[in-house]
Amino acid sequence: MPIVTFGTAYYPDHWPKSEWARDLDRIAEAGLTTVRFGEFSWSWYEPRPGKFDWAPFDRFVDLVEARGLKLCLCTPTATPPPWFDTLFPDGRLLDMNGRRCLSPRHFWCWNHPGSRAHAQATIERLAKRYGGRNSLWGWQIDNEPNYAEEANLATPERMYDHNPYARQAWVRWLGEKYDNSLAALNEAWATNFWSQRYGAWDELIVPRGRTNPHAWLDWMRWREANLADWIGWQRDLLRKLTPGKPVGCNIPETGISLSLSIGQDYWAQAAGLDWVGTDLYQATGNRKRDLARLAYSTDLMRSAADATGAAFSISEAQAGPHERAWPNNFAGEGFSPGYLEQSARVFCERGAEKIWWFLWRPTLGGHEIGMNGMQSLDGSNTLRTAAAYRLSREGASLAARRRTFLRRPRAVVHYSRDSLRFATAFSADAQRAEDTFAGWHGLLESAGYRVDFADDREVTKVSPAEAALLVLPFTLVADGPFVEWLAAYPGSLVVGPHTACSNRHGHLCATHLPELLAAAWRVDFGLWRDVGDLPRAAKLPPLTGWRELSPRAGGRVRAKFSNGAPLATYTKNALIAAVDFGELSLRTTTAQRTTLVRWLRPSTVKADYTGQRGKRSSRQA
Amino acid sequence: MPIVTFGTAYYPDHWPKSEWARDLDRIAEAGLTTVRFGEFSWSWYEPRPGKFDWAPFDRFVDLVEARGLKLCLCTPTATPPPWFDTLFPDGRLLDMNGRRCLSPRHFWCWNHPGSRAHAQATIERLAKRYGGRNSLWGWQIDNEPNYAEEANLATPERMYDHNPYARQAWVRWLGEKYDNSLAALNEAWATNFWSQRYGAWDELIVPRGRTNPHAWLDWMRWREANLADWIGWQRDLLRKLTPGKPVGCNIPETGISLSLSIGQDYWAQAAGLDWVGTDLYQATGNRKRDLARLAYSTDLMRSAADATGAAFSISEAQAGPHERAWPNNFAGEGFSPGYLEQSARVFCERGAEKIWWFLWRPTLGGHEIGMNGMQSLDGSNTLRTAAAYRLSREGASLAARRRTFLRRPRAVVHYSRDSLRFATAFSADAQRAEDTFAGWHGLLESAGYRVDFADDREVTKVSPAEAALLVLPFTLVADGPFVEWLAAYPGSLVVGPHTACSNRHGHLCATHLPELLAAAWRVDFGLWRDVGDLPRAAKLPPLTGWRELSPRAGGRVRAKFSNGAPLATYTKNALIAAVDFGELSLRTTTAQRTTLVRWLRPSTVKADYTGQRGKRSSRQA
Amino acid sequence: MPIVTFGTAYYPDHWPKSEWARDLDRIAEAGLTTVRFGEFSWSWYEPRPGKFDWAPFDRFVDLVEARGLKLCLCTPTATPPPWFDTLFPDGRLLDMNGRRCLSPRHFWCWNHPGSRAHAQATIERLAKRYGGRNSLWGWQIDNEPNYAEEANLATPERMYDHNPYARQAWVRWLGEKYDNSLAALNEAWATNFWSQRYGAWDELIVPRGRTNPHAWLDWMRWREANLADWIGWQRDLLRKLTPGKPVGCNIPETGISLSLSIGQDYWAQAAGLDWVGTDLYQATGNRKRDLARLAYSTDLMRSAADATGAAFSISEAQAGPHERAWPNNFAGEGFSPGYLEQSARVFCERGAEKIWWFLWRPTLGGHEIGMNGMQSLDGSNTLRTAAAYRLSREGASLAARRRTFLRRPRAVVHYSRDSLRFATAFSADAQRAEDTFAGWHGLLESAGYRVDFADDREVTKVSPAEAALLVLPFTLVADGPFVEWLAAYPGSLVVGPHTACSNRHGHLCATHLPELLAAAWRVDFGLWRDVGDLPRAAKLPPLTGWRELSPRAGGRVRAKFSNGAPLATYTKNALIAAVDFGELSLRTTTAQRTTLVRWLRPSTVKADYTGQRGKRSSRQA
Repeated sequence: MPIVTFGTAYYPDHWPKSEWARDLDRIAEAGLTTVRFGEFSWSWYEPRPGKFDWAPFDRFVDLVEARGLKLCLCTPTATPPPWFDTLFPDGRLLDMNGRRCLSPRHFWCWNHPGSRAHAQATIERLAKRYGGRNSLWGWQIDNEPNYAEEANLATPERMYDHNPYARQAWVRWLGEKYDNSLAALNEAWATNFWSQRYGAWDELIVPRGRTNPHAWLDWMRWREANLADWIGWQRDLLRKLTPGKPVGCNIPETGISLSLSIGQDYWAQAAGLDWVGTDLYQATGNRKRDLARLAYSTDLMRSAADATGAAFSISEAQAGPHERAWPNNFAGEGFSPGYLEQSARVFCERGAEKIWWFLWRPTLGGHEIGMNGMQSLDGSNTLRTAAAYRLSREGASLAARRRTFLRRPRAVVHYSRDSLRFATAFSADAQRAEDTFAGWHGLLESAGYRVDFADDREVTKVSPAEAALLVLPFTLVADGPFVEWLAAYPGSLVVGPHTACSNRHGHLCATHLPELLAAAWRVDFGLWRDVGDLPRAAKLPPLTGWRELSPRAGGRVRAKFSNGAPLATYTKNALIAAVDFGELSLRTTTAQRTTLVRWLRPSTVKADYTGQRGKRSSRQA
Repeated sequence: MPIVTFGTAYYPDHWPKSEWARDLDRIAEAGLTTVRFGEFSWSWYEPRPGKFDWAPFDRFVDLVEARGLKLCLCTPTATPPPWFDTLFPDGRLLDMNGRRCLSPRHFWCWNHPGSRAHAQATIERLAKRYGGRNSLWGWQIDNEPNYAEEANLATPERMYDHNPYARQAWVRWLGEKYDNSLAALNEAWATNFWSQRYGAWDELIVPRGRTNPHAWLDWMRWREANLADWIGWQRDLLRKLTPGKPVGCNIPETGISLSLSIGQDYWAQAAGLDWVGTDLYQATGNRKRDLARLAYSTDLMRSAADATGAAFSISEAQAGPHERAWPNNFAGEGFSPGYLEQSARVFCERGAEKIWWFLWRPTLGGHEIGMNGMQSLDGSNTLRTAAAYRLSREGASLAARRRTFLRRPRAVVHYSRDSLRFATAFSADAQRAEDTFAGWHGLLESAGYRVDFADDREVTKVSPAEAALLVLPFTLVADGPFVEWLAAYPGSLVVGPHTACSNRHGHLCATHLPELLAAAWRVDFGLWRDVGDLPRAAKLPPLTGWRELSPRAGGRVRAKFSNGAPLATYTKNALIAAVDFGELSLRTTTAQRTTLVRWLRPSTVKADYTGQRGKRSSRQA
Repeated sequence: MPIVTFGTAYYPDHWPKSEWARDLDRIAEAGLTTVRFGEFSWSWYEPRPGKFDWAPFDRFVDLVEARGLKLCLCTPTATPPPWFDTLFPDGRLLDMNGRRCLSPRHFWCWNHPGSRAHAQATIERLAKRYGGRNSLWGWQIDNEPNYAEEANLATPERMYDHNPYARQAWVRWLGEKYDNSLAALNEAWATNFWSQRYGAWDELIVPRGRTNPHAWLDWMRWREANLADWIGWQRDLLRKLTPGKPVGCNIPETGISLSLSIGQDYWAQAAGLDWVGTDLYQATGNRKRDLARLAYSTDLMRSAADATGAAFSISEAQAGPHERAWPNNFAGEGFSPGYLEQSARVFCERGAEKIWWFLWRPTLGGHEIGMNGMQSLDGSNTLRTAAAYRLSREGASLAARRRTFLRRPRAVVHYSRDSLRFATAFSADAQRAEDTFAGWHGLLESAGYRVDFADDREVTKVSPAEAALLVLPFTLVADGPFVEWLAAYPGSLVVGPHTACSNRHGHLCATHLPELLAAAWRVDFGLWRDVGDLPRAAKLPPLTGWRELSPRAGGRVRAKFSNGAPLATYTKNALIAAVDFGELSLRTTTAQRTTLVRWLRPSTVKADYTGQRGKRSSRQA
């Protein structure tokens, strides 16, 4: 178990040279060991295309090195300089109507080959200059890929990327996926519906909004793959340039809705990295809820890091409140004393080996003016600086918290990205899925588990030996080998009401639940109903619907709605829910939540799903 | 009185060939006689421009014919294939800012001559191939013209059609309307206001948003006429290609607001057709309200069919709930047992001779995945199939319901499309008009009438011999011969508070009410006031305003507001309302509604408006 | 003190020639002396480019002159005729995405040199024809500059002006401002933040949305300066064409939010004019609030007129309700009897020397159909005509009201346009600032003052000899000489919680409050906090936040929050508030408001801030 270490983000380009030494001294005095820099500074050191001004950068690195600090150097691709627009006038992201992206960051289409070549040349220069420095701890690729790209699921015509270079990449990706068979694509996309059958690959260039759910599903897959490829391309480039130096990325946990808008696949972005960081800003002032949200996000992102064997870190942990003198909507004032320590403990317990405070000094200018500083606006120490110092000295004991945490039984939640993508074909309201996953996380923690998430690639690696419980809260898309694997899964399972309703192309399962699963779980799925159909006596809080469940022979009813319809059925190793327990748990009374927790406790799971069911059946509602 | 018959929509292009025979067998077994198909299948049989693949289509028609079923064949113009964009890159609908329409259907500008020629060629091929088949029952033109075009009254710059071909058609239409006199147009449009006087026809090409209410009124007229012309063009083409075969269209009743956004004129679309169908999706789960809404919509659309002497049918009657496994916003889960029969009875009572269930099997893919099936997802029968079978055998008795219904006295409601168009020049909030007409429909039914609607072309054909009551709930635009006709109308009338406030160009009447009408109805109209001006004691529910009424000699006050202002006045044959009774009726208490109903009862109308008023005057508020 | 006189707007181009004489007779009979005309009539007298039709205009002027009336002639640039689009196809305003402005007025980019030359030629012709007429009272430039340009702060990409001619002007303006030093611009704009450093002036052409708050601040400054320049250009042109004739403008008080959207700087627009008019439409039906709002707006705009030494008038005072026969959202029905007189008294008391009623007759057509008439739709007199006649005869006594009003002690409110501009870089919610200023106005009037406003140019001319109190409610941007002036200001001051938080470039003050001010006011500013941080016991209404205040030696606490934090501190001549009293005053209970009023009364201010504090300190909360 490694010791937890700390660092911070510091931007020399925001401050007079005369203050760098003092600021770095204080960073070192606070027990921090690493400084992260460079993700937004392209125009600082390459003010004109191909003309570099390294002197200030060199001086800063010297000062870092002189204090024994280490540097995490970021590639600058999040914000190309203004001259990019002059050099590559056709290189901006475009939306479906051809409007140029005006986002403050991540406004660039890296499928544009000329601009990608320029990015490569700049990264090579950067690596050549600093790759050999002792102080180089490692690399961060870009920063928060695609975050702040102002895409919006609710208005898909405002989503990117429809730059012609991107569309060509999209058509190439489809060609590969469908083995250059348009017939296969037409079949998969059900293009006979509303006369969309394609007769030539070029026709795919023309967008048709969110008309076709199967095409939309592929489009969402491609966007995420395309972004992950861009990260992978930088990863491979850096590996070649500075072998042995750790390469990672700061992948923000943006919530499900935004992650779908901007095309994030956490697992795909993490693949092959040495370290995976994330950043989490959650300071609404409701301390309990804020910490629960940090716990959920940390577990989610650590799972993505674990899947690729990467070290896990918090690349940006909020270091302080905002110091603006006017009201603003972004969290910050909710950051109150003690929160720094509490959030650090949450991160460490759940696997963070490194925490970078964001940031050392709030800038006095720029878009994020006055935000998030550990220090005061003038660079002087605050109470938080002292707290950070104390935490730095606790590295080993913080790591020990993790060991205690790991003793809990493990629940694995299937985080089916494909299902989330598919759902967006019909609704921009991803809050439900957010509630589902956050709700399940809290429910399982209440029942005594530690929680891991497994994406579509990882889920079939789960085994009962390692997981006391496997939960499928939102596994809409499932077919073929995965269905077979699921039907044969010998461990304890909780099955959500949407499970396996469609195949990989997004075509509905004609029997609602594949026969293999119905046979395994002893249940048939009927219609998905509005909760409005439920008698009021059920006393459930508002939900988005429920599933008709009919137990087959060998299936039993765990509880009923007041109108007699099953609320959950179960069999030897599976509990099948007619409603979304995750969402439900966020809205229940304490008593209702207690019932859910009781059903899910490791001891109950063990008793009920291994043949010792007799003595509990009398307790069913 | 013809017998009611039933059919369904079935899409062979959505299903494996191997299932067609079984599905058609079940359709026949359920007592259905016709199958509707083809409205969205262009790319199925013409996968490349001019290259047809008729084999599957032929096979399907053979199977239909073999079972003695009849085919309603649709022209495919609702959804041109993807190659249309390649062939006619300048043919899409454009909005005011030149953005291409990305709607899933009805995204095409048929004013584009090349694309219209192609559509004609395809329809000719279709008619040539199947026009001679015994099984061809008849034709449906397009489907739901313009429905799903994502226009929006609230943001007029997102409305279509601003394709240059459409603008040219618009300018031609104006030239014809104003006898090529720009002076006449400038006068009609009051272009001296805000310096808009046109000096050349070309200047009209440039849009000016919703700046000029008179231009907007003409623009709305042109859009509706242009769409109706497109339907008429197909009607004439089909008549020539297959003489004797019934030609009709499925015209959706979309509600007033949407109908204005997408440019629908029900009466103009229906003109000259052999049959007029409509489709109505109303299944919110509030059974009583749903059926009342179906009744209103059916009466409205049947009136449009009656005006042209066409047979009336329900082209799409919802056949079942949605079978999606996730929440969605579109109605469906509200479809519960018994609704199929109840809705069928509403349709028949109000004149439907044919009902097509929509649809036979919910598709497993495509934009409308899982929606509306009579059968289960796998094609097996449901309880609804049995209900449909029973209804099929009741055809004659269902028709008999209509005869009973027709014995009621008849009220005719003026459905002034021009007034609705004019109102949109000032507000996108057409909910008020929706409430007005739906409210009046319910109120008149409560008072014991059957209700017909008459549009601006039909209203002057109404006579007291055929109509016990004529209602003008929203007749803003009126002048010339229509005003003369109204002033001389000898039958019973109810006059709304906005009546005749402007002439045909949308210019205000300087005396608020034309003198001819004021003299006939013995009343002067004053200002239109906010309801806020009313004393609270009036105890009226929230309304959008009221009209100052001053009875002239011979006019009497029917009831007063609590501040003494008249709530309604009357004369020999007319009741003049200071508020919108239709809107009011949706919001009143039962007692208030009872009063309104009492004033409108056929017996009251007869007594009050034929000189026997004495005995009732004591009852006035 | 001049006598108050009255006029009206009358549009001959809206009415048949045959009615002009009668209408002008009635105008004269009502005691009105001036007629305003021409602001929207360009296409009436120049129907084709360079082809004029003066006959109707001449006839109208003859009729005016024959009645001894005077004419206020407007330049027509608010609404170029339709042929402008043909002549200058690249001359429309464009938004950030290049979309043409479709506003009904002020849709033109006057940075386009060809179109500006055409405007000059037309104005010259107008001046040549009527400049020598005896009846010419004077000129109005344009009308309501930029009003009705449909810009929207909430969606900055919809804001204007991004026409290439405008962007060039913007870059030129920047070049002048920064002495052609890109380094200075990069420093001022903190372009190292997010890699925005500019290396060439051309790069500034490309917009980046609202990414950079400092660039945004300059952009807002430039838009306002550019609009004011356009007015100044017309002013100088008219002065040259008709020396001696008064030149003015109708500058609408649109509220802070809209004024920022459309780029208005009242003081800059007023500069150098002979008369400054404004127009105010406020008739919601809540009489007390409506009159208070009129008082605030009148004081604000009169202050702008006073600053340049111009006569002040109400160019458009609402003359009546709307006479539409359908609901609409624009104020009007709230216009009830007596309001005409009440509003006139408010205007006169606060300095208006001339009032033009808007308008004489409501038009029967056009965008503003039926709105605002003094007369009935048919041109006949109303009760309001009689009221206007009475007011005309009271001119001298109305002016006398002003003298009484002027006896009150004077409070000056710093209306810091720069601070308002800066705030929009972070939030489109300018309602808060609206509340701040309107709230302060009401509070100071309650405390017995008359209120003037001083903009950033005027504020340093304020002296204790002339102002009993100087209030800085929203003075975010302050540095250099202004800070020195403030620190040395010897008179009584009230200081808002945001004061001087940033320098002229929008960079934060690293000590929160400049040391000079902290020393002068004996207080240190801490964090800006959410009100959520306040204990509930404070019983304050919802606010947007509060400032941490720490009195230095010599500073005292005036009142505390219930958690002990200072709500206000004071020193010899300054009261420093932790919250926005202006906003607060709109939401307080009467008791809370009474406390605020007590603190601000002239007698309290005098006692507390001149050393006689002892006897009051016991009263502090």
